[in-house]
Amino acid sequence: MRTYLDCYPCFLRQTLDAVRHAQIDEELQQQVLRQAMEILPTFDLQASPPEMGAYIHRLIRLELDNPDPYREAKARSTAEALALYPRLKKRIASSADRLDTAVRLAIAGNIIDRGVSQTYDLWDVVERMLTQEFAIDARVAFRAALATAQSVLYLGDNAGETVFDRLLIETLELPVTYVVKGSPVLNDATLEDARAAGLEQVATLLTNGTDIPGTILAKTSAEFQERYAEAELIIAKGQGNYETLSESHNPKLFYLLQVKCPVIARDLGVQVGAMVFKQAE
Amino acid sequence: MRTYLDCYPCFLRQTLDAVRHAQIDEELQQQVLRQAMEILPTFDLQASPPEMGAYIHRLIRLELDNPDPYREAKARSTAEALALYPRLKKRIASSADRLDTAVRLAIAGNIIDRGVSQTYDLWDVVERMLTQEFAIDARVAFRAALATAQSVLYLGDNAGETVFDRLLIETLELPVTYVVKGSPVLNDATLEDARAAGLEQVATLLTNGTDIPGTILAKTSAEFQERYAEAELIIAKGQGNYETLSESHNPKLFYLLQVKCPVIARDLGVQVGAMVFKQAE
Repeated sequence: MRTYLDCYPCFLRQTLDAVRHAQIDEELQQQVLRQAMEILPTFDLQASPPEMGAYIHRLIRLELDNPDPYREAKARSTAEALALYPRLKKRIASSADRLDTAVRLAIAGNIIDRGVSQTYDLWDVVERMLTQEFAIDARVAFRAALATAQSVLYLGDNAGETVFDRLLIETLELPVTYVVKGSPVLNDATLEDARAAGLEQVATLLTNGTDIPGTILAKTSAEFQERYAEAELIIAKGQGNYETLSESHNPKLFYLLQVKCPVIARDLGVQVGAMVFKQAE
Repeated sequence: MRTYLDCYPCFLRQTLDAVRHAQIDEELQQQVLRQAMEILPTFDLQASPPEMGAYIHRLIRLELDNPDPYREAKARSTAEALALYPRLKKRIASSADRLDTAVRLAIAGNIIDRGVSQTYDLWDVVERMLTQEFAIDARVAFRAALATAQSVLYLGDNAGETVFDRLLIETLELPVTYVVKGSPVLNDATLEDARAAGLEQVATLLTNGTDIPGTILAKTSAEFQERYAEAELIIAKGQGNYETLSESHNPKLFYLLQVKCPVIARDLGVQVGAMVFKQAE
């Protein structure tokens, strides 16, 4: 998916959110925003938003002299999600359709996203996603793919959301490779964040080797590319993975996300707030 | 009220909204956004947001070679509000407290604001504002001021909202001077917009002589300044007037607005969505 001009104010808001995290004075905050405004118009709008986001967040980390400005926020998100884990686990165990419940919870966890502007109550989102209708629904195709696959490649998204991914992985009953970012960007999960969520106990962890908040195949590591090419079934979590992989024509690929931005909503032909489980065409 | 860094992404969103109105190609849209991003960091954050907004909208009008990009949008807003006028008029007439109802409707009309990002159903907002509690409530002080005043100076805000102001003016039973902007900026009402709303029939119209989406006294015309200094009772409608006059210590001044932005909410110590009727301290 390409970048739209709507992304400019949004990247600026992300930059402000990041610099405010760093507790620096307003003059330095303004300086980082100024630099972001200088580089934004230099990007090709045909590139995907996460590619532009990667540059913006590199600038932020450089200017703040902080390799992981969201480290504490990520740890809090993981702790908050882990506190809900026992309740969520019981909810799945007592479900008539455990896979359906686990898929819904994985989408609920996708609310944990510092790239968008929103406040939410995590449990409220969980309750809503357990009953909301899917705007795009590939559950039947996914079950069919799952029945024949020997393993799953799971492209993770954000820290905290990782705990919800773990619940889905525990329900899949197949070997899963869980992919995280190679180094920190925004609140995307890294190896450290995945381990904190307990994912090492239920999946093989792998990094994609990049600091891009999505999956731009050509920029990922050789090891990741090989696993991606060989995968029998791929789950791509969240907006960033959708934005960067939406032009893939790979029927093994399923996007699992909550739509939180009007540009992505328009691209998918759904409303903001929609639950999407989409098979790549 | 000073400007905050939060205003940067918001001005950029306003710029995008304005250039999209103009139906120009994306390359030219991007060029205007680039220029907005160049000038934004050059402003003094101690100035009020409408002062910065005035520059941004001058740039937009210049680049679009269009003196009034919101002209059609303003005409639509006025027509939409006029269509509700008979229902609103009856609602006031049948009220136990006609002034209270008219004040509430004047705040409801303040939802018509192209400076903020929102979608709304105008009648839904009317219904909500008729029963919502005031977050800041100067109704008692206002009634007392009204009992002794011989006339009212009413600082207008947006086109369409003008129709709701007219309803309040018709309820006041005092001579009113209704102030509009000297020339177009955003969807702020000008003389043309005030006339289209029928305000000429119920008030003396006056412009403040500026294209600033608020009231910066030092920049207004000598005639306006004189009327302002002599006024016995002043109603200042909307966020822009609050942002620019909030440091006035003039007990004759009453702010009447709906809070639509988190920066103003913080400044006033209320929530976004609040109804505010505040006497200047």
